[in-house]
Amino acid sequence: MSLVLDPAAQDLLFREARTANAFTDEPVTDEQMQAIYDLVKYGPTAFNQTPLRVVLVRSAEARERLLPHMAEGNRPKTASAPLVAILAADNEFHEELPALFPHFPQAKDVFFGERPARENSALLNAALQAAYFIVGVRAAGLAAGPMTGFDPAGLQKEFLDGDHTPLMVVNIGRPAENAWFPRSPRLAYDDVIKTV
Amino acid sequence: MSLVLDPAAQDLLFREARTANAFTDEPVTDEQMQAIYDLVKYGPTAFNQTPLRVVLVRSAEARERLLPHMAEGNRPKTASAPLVAILAADNEFHEELPALFPHFPQAKDVFFGERPARENSALLNAALQAAYFIVGVRAAGLAAGPMTGFDPAGLQKEFLDGDHTPLMVVNIGRPAENAWFPRSPRLAYDDVIKTV
Repeated sequence: MSLVLDPAAQDLLFREARTANAFTDEPVTDEQMQAIYDLVKYGPTAFNQTPLRVVLVRSAEARERLLPHMAEGNRPKTASAPLVAILAADNEFHEELPALFPHFPQAKDVFFGERPARENSALLNAALQAAYFIVGVRAAGLAAGPMTGFDPAGLQKEFLDGDHTPLMVVNIGRPAENAWFPRSPRLAYDDVIKTV
Repeated sequence: MSLVLDPAAQDLLFREARTANAFTDEPVTDEQMQAIYDLVKYGPTAFNQTPLRVVLVRSAEARERLLPHMAEGNRPKTASAPLVAILAADNEFHEELPALFPHFPQAKDVFFGERPARENSALLNAALQAAYFIVGVRAAGLAAGPMTGFDPAGLQKEFLDGDHTPLMVVNIGRPAENAWFPRSPRLAYDDVIKTV
């Protein structure tokens, strides 16, 4: 019993949580999304930066605009999920650093004055925040269906701009019956972790 | 009450958890690291890939080799943390895909036959796994101190190889008194999430 986290929470977030490919009709509310964000916004990032941006695709019109940019195999579930979120990295996140990292406001220019450095940091830290977001969806008792199978340039043009790089699209909702594949294997501890 | 996750678990993982800059002497055991991995290995990735690799720096000799590659401001805490983990992305993760993603073993070649595609995917998915790892450290009742201030080339040469890209270094242990800065602000929901 090396973990302090309650076993029910372990199951909810990791052990029994699964990537869902089919959902019930039950809506996902703005209140749920607000609660998820208010929890996972505290996940740590470098310099307290917050590059993650989320576009919630709620309207039928926006859903229609999204589908052609998804890989064909991802379209049916993206069409039928109660809510779809586009997760992107804001490559101009440094503008917020003086407010977000007040004990070293110079970080904005010292570390992120050049766009390539910003893009690298935005990608890494928005990916961390994307993982916290997935954990947060599960914390709300919902299933997430993250997907990287889409046309990045098309998605960027349709929903974002040149300063925002799409990372993933996440279907969100209550899982339907038979919503997932059988659990696939994971690497063993000794295949991943070595001690020196 | 839009979240299902127990409030104590919310606090443990997000609300009260903080990035620690100072630690007590209490050791972090291999049993704890095993329990953390056995929980967070279930975090979702694209194609069930597992690019994250972890080097646990345990010996005094290895700690001495690590310190010169850390940014100067990160050295004292990296020297004194009970355990330090180097997190890296394995850019040759595709070799494991036939075992990890058995219902579409061709993914190894169809999507990841070219190194640049692998590097992009390894970075994104190892970053997701790094975030799950940080959540797992907190699930063990420990504090994580993730850092990106290091010399990537030097760290890679000292502890990894050309196929492994360092992502971050994480100090792990029980927080000492005054282990962190005051909580800095986060962006508001409306600054991060928009609905279309």
